[in-house]
Amino acid sequence: MRFLVSYVLSVWLGVLCVISVCLWSGIWRGGFAWDGSFQQFNWHPVLMVTSLVVLYGNAILLYRVPLTWSKWWCKLTHAGLLFVAVVLSVLGVRAAFDFHTANNIPHLYSLHSWTGISTVALFTLQWFVGICAFLLPWTPLAFRARLKPLHIWMGIAIFILSLVTSLSGINEKLLLTLNGRNGSDTEPYTALPAEALFANSLGIVVVIFGLLVLKLLSNQKWKNPEFENETDRPLLPDAR
Amino acid sequence: MRFLVSYVLSVWLGVLCVISVCLWSGIWRGGFAWDGSFQQFNWHPVLMVTSLVVLYGNAILLYRVPLTWSKWWCKLTHAGLLFVAVVLSVLGVRAAFDFHTANNIPHLYSLHSWTGISTVALFTLQWFVGICAFLLPWTPLAFRARLKPLHIWMGIAIFILSLVTSLSGINEKLLLTLNGRNGSDTEPYTALPAEALFANSLGIVVVIFGLLVLKLLSNQKWKNPEFENETDRPLLPDAR
Repeated sequence: MRFLVSYVLSVWLGVLCVISVCLWSGIWRGGFAWDGSFQQFNWHPVLMVTSLVVLYGNAILLYRVPLTWSKWWCKLTHAGLLFVAVVLSVLGVRAAFDFHTANNIPHLYSLHSWTGISTVALFTLQWFVGICAFLLPWTPLAFRARLKPLHIWMGIAIFILSLVTSLSGINEKLLLTLNGRNGSDTEPYTALPAEALFANSLGIVVVIFGLLVLKLLSNQKWKNPEFENETDRPLLPDAR
Repeated sequence: MRFLVSYVLSVWLGVLCVISVCLWSGIWRGGFAWDGSFQQFNWHPVLMVTSLVVLYGNAILLYRVPLTWSKWWCKLTHAGLLFVAVVLSVLGVRAAFDFHTANNIPHLYSLHSWTGISTVALFTLQWFVGICAFLLPWTPLAFRARLKPLHIWMGIAIFILSLVTSLSGINEKLLLTLNGRNGSDTEPYTALPAEALFANSLGIVVVIFGLLVLKLLSNQKWKNPEFENETDRPLLPDAR
């Protein structure tokens, strides 16, 4: 029961993250386009939060949801959600890069961009290794069993990196945009206009969602019993 | 052996964090003072990284170091290190607030400041509740046993909040300082001058230190056998 309440809360928080980041880009930042303008950049927060926070968090939690699915379907959905996340995150990076190129802004100078590009690279690598190791049928079971704890740990570490990067990104965008320059008609960040309150709150919701996912994940009692011994099957040759 | 290598690495990374943040404030940002100037602000990153990242991480890891200390001494050292961290973090916040006041900058407008003040408040509360529950001799053992998993989980969550806040703080400081304005004689952040490279690297070291602490913490095999039965479940998935 406690798990279910927390799980439903996490789903709602995830939906709230996606809606909020869309509203921020859509209403306050002037909507969307794909032409190198600010409107193209607006895809960046939407795609990154949707992929590397919300889809990622939900793909992890699949292993805690008491589904009646077979192990194979659960794995496939995990990999599928994360594949969508890989595609969206690469598009999200592209949105930022195209905007930089069109406006003569150097790529990858800020700490946010350093942790961000590392997160996307590690996330994509983790997905690729995951597919090879846990979905391709000819991977030796002994190799799977050895890799699984590392896969789980890397998954958590990259998710934490994702949270770190999202928060510094929201902060960076507000500092660069609500700066009282650029002929902007908005109040400065320091005056906490409605946009700043809204986007700061988005950051807080993102971090609460992330910590809730980690909390749900941490409880061994909530592990799906179906998968308890997923790769810990006896590794002796099958004598049947 | 693997634990020892990782542990020694974490100690060195912690020392590297403290030295680097001191060098950043001391060399590139003009040194230290306590007079409301930029030099007072320079204490802020030094005190926050030292307290809420390095001391905090080491205080957590005490429960994984194979010491021959009694449980009582281990607890006392944990509480003592965290007490020093509480004091330094409050001083660190004070350094930023005094600087804001002296320069007519509003407090608590950025997302960094929102997560930061929450981190310090939760950290102080966690320390106080920890002292009352686990050090005062008249706390019922049943209460201790019930509180302990929450204490451990909150400790990890606040530590992650700390990492999130540190990274957004370093990013914010660089964006606000290396902006090509304020009659500054430094190159802008976008040109990645030596200071930006150095402080971005500091951020990367902070996050590697943090993830390494969480990794060391996650391995149930590395629990101090003296304390083996203190809690019933691991708080992060076991990454053996």
